[in-house]
Amino acid sequence: MGKVFEGLKVVDLTTALNGPFCTMFLGDYGADVIKIEPVGGEQSRSWGPIDEKSGESGFYGFVNRNKKGCTLNLKSEKGLEMFYELVKDADVLVENYRGGVTERLKIDYDTIKKINPNIIYASGSGFGQYGPITHRPCYDIVAQAMGGMLNLTGFKENDPVKVGPSVADHVAGIYLMVGVGMALYHREKTGEGQHIDVSMFDVIFSLLENAIVNYTMGGFIPERNGNVDPSIAPFDVYACKDGFVALGVGNDKLFNKFANIIGHQELLEDERYKDNVSRCDNYIPDLQNLIREWCADYTKSEIEDIMDEAGIPCGPVLNVKEAIEHPHIQARDMMVHCEHPTVGDMYFQGCVIKLSETPGEVETAPPLVGQHNREVFGLSEEEEKALIEEGVL
Amino acid sequence: MGKVFEGLKVVDLTTALNGPFCTMFLGDYGADVIKIEPVGGEQSRSWGPIDEKSGESGFYGFVNRNKKGCTLNLKSEKGLEMFYELVKDADVLVENYRGGVTERLKIDYDTIKKINPNIIYASGSGFGQYGPITHRPCYDIVAQAMGGMLNLTGFKENDPVKVGPSVADHVAGIYLMVGVGMALYHREKTGEGQHIDVSMFDVIFSLLENAIVNYTMGGFIPERNGNVDPSIAPFDVYACKDGFVALGVGNDKLFNKFANIIGHQELLEDERYKDNVSRCDNYIPDLQNLIREWCADYTKSEIEDIMDEAGIPCGPVLNVKEAIEHPHIQARDMMVHCEHPTVGDMYFQGCVIKLSETPGEVETAPPLVGQHNREVFGLSEEEEKALIEEGVL
Repeated sequence: MGKVFEGLKVVDLTTALNGPFCTMFLGDYGADVIKIEPVGGEQSRSWGPIDEKSGESGFYGFVNRNKKGCTLNLKSEKGLEMFYELVKDADVLVENYRGGVTERLKIDYDTIKKINPNIIYASGSGFGQYGPITHRPCYDIVAQAMGGMLNLTGFKENDPVKVGPSVADHVAGIYLMVGVGMALYHREKTGEGQHIDVSMFDVIFSLLENAIVNYTMGGFIPERNGNVDPSIAPFDVYACKDGFVALGVGNDKLFNKFANIIGHQELLEDERYKDNVSRCDNYIPDLQNLIREWCADYTKSEIEDIMDEAGIPCGPVLNVKEAIEHPHIQARDMMVHCEHPTVGDMYFQGCVIKLSETPGEVETAPPLVGQHNREVFGLSEEEEKALIEEGVL
Repeated sequence: MGKVFEGLKVVDLTTALNGPFCTMFLGDYGADVIKIEPVGGEQSRSWGPIDEKSGESGFYGFVNRNKKGCTLNLKSEKGLEMFYELVKDADVLVENYRGGVTERLKIDYDTIKKINPNIIYASGSGFGQYGPITHRPCYDIVAQAMGGMLNLTGFKENDPVKVGPSVADHVAGIYLMVGVGMALYHREKTGEGQHIDVSMFDVIFSLLENAIVNYTMGGFIPERNGNVDPSIAPFDVYACKDGFVALGVGNDKLFNKFANIIGHQELLEDERYKDNVSRCDNYIPDLQNLIREWCADYTKSEIEDIMDEAGIPCGPVLNVKEAIEHPHIQARDMMVHCEHPTVGDMYFQGCVIKLSETPGEVETAPPLVGQHNREVFGLSEEEEKALIEEGVL
């Protein structure tokens, strides 16, 4: 089976996370992704974990597989000239500089469009390409804070807390890929390229779900509520013998089963729990405590099996090791091996989107710094050496 | 300007959140999305907020704008026949039933492919279309728990806590849209359709970032760490006079500025804070406390302005109302108005992906139950009435 993006040339100027996560999809699904890093390599090459033997970064590794690696000093005249030559026949360019930086570097959309009129130019950034604070630097935590996510995450009685992994960066990268897919489809039909602009602040805001209409239609400002759902009960995370389980009992039929399973048939006669609305109103403290007591006597695996048999949505809170080793994650190839020239075996996340005819795949290892300079720029060994000495590569 | 998906016919069998979030993109960017709901309407029509006057749901509303609404009893012979007729010339079908359900309803990919060989068939579900636990019911919290997100979110000393909004559902919908875009591009080039399979469990797992390689390369199992980043310091959320701010000081140059701003030049002479690695090792408790003390004397807006001027990434923790009203969110049309026939003005989230040539737009209100039955199925008033009486619509 072929890959959907085979034959596409992508020039990848991205660093760190949101941009590289977007070009990872292009590479996984067959595009020729040429990653251009600053001389010496981009910042995430120093981010942990670092392989002791080779000095290579696992962070850089998982997100830059299936890409070719080049270096280029865009601030040098020669470097900029080589870059313009490279983008002449590119299909897609992806960058994630802070708003305003591409103009200063003379590689903004308007400039590149003059060289390659039908290019698809994708920009991922903290605050996007326009708007009053477009110029600001942004970390994932800043987008999570301003976008409203932090305030909605955590327990009522504690401070707001960020989503552990960098959700703003990741989801911005996925959104940017949606934009690239739309633009490729449009270009295939019309020949026309365009500029795509995705902002991490917008991205987080777009995930706030009904919290937004709760304010604009309902007039109240939702606040964080731990693991309890305001509209379904019981729906919570419970401590058990060896960890925690998440459990949701969505309707009366399931609650009937659930009451029997936990040996509390008397709940079904209790006016306080007669329907989902009543259960939501009266969940805390009695019903919650009673379920907590029951869970404390079982392991998470025992509870999972019991609820699976009853058809009640339930799952253990898994740590990273447990999730990696889960038979379902394994069966769906969500972990893949990749042979790296200096690290040896790398073992990291696979492809989420399962396509029946044009599946994604991890084929090549993340590149060493400048590994593909000669191939991509068509240089002899001597020419490469000279450009390195000039500070261009 | 036209829209990228103009002319595409999408049959939308989705309910609740992950599927509808995918078809929302198709509708926002111009496709003719025909949403098929069970007789009486789908479950999220009863999810809050509910407009008192009209009884319409704001939850259903924001995610189903730009779609046509039909009802159909797929368990009736006539209903199934009408459905097969409808998909004959569809470009895309999107569904988010639990694994195994489409087979029972006789609307699985293999069946539909016989009727429409080149259709793109997109499936979003909790556990995907294959793997040992594909049959299980799943809520967002279950995917967050099993995918490893819960265990990495929250403060060390507290229980694991879920991401407030339904991140598994939302991100699964965005990933599914990436798949639809890839499949449309492939079909445009080859004429061939395919099946897309996205699982919420995989989706959450794919967001764990370097936590995965920290285990497979570094051998340690990361645990939740509140708002502190293990590789940058200072990087945290601080209480101030009127709320909280998120603040990250990524390198020595910024730390130099920062120490001067907070009036603690002595930090720059302190061996414990001489570089980022040292600051990470020695951030807690002294440096953290000192910054906490400084922040307590300012409002979040004051801190934001000070850090903006210094170029230090910083943002206030905004609640939903504050985020909605933020000038940047407003300037980027991330909130849009929509006139609904019975609710009146609806005001909800706009389009994240800014496309220069084929932008998205909210044009039509979410449909009333069965609003487009006659138009879509080509029925007279009498025919519609008869089918309602038969229990087909």
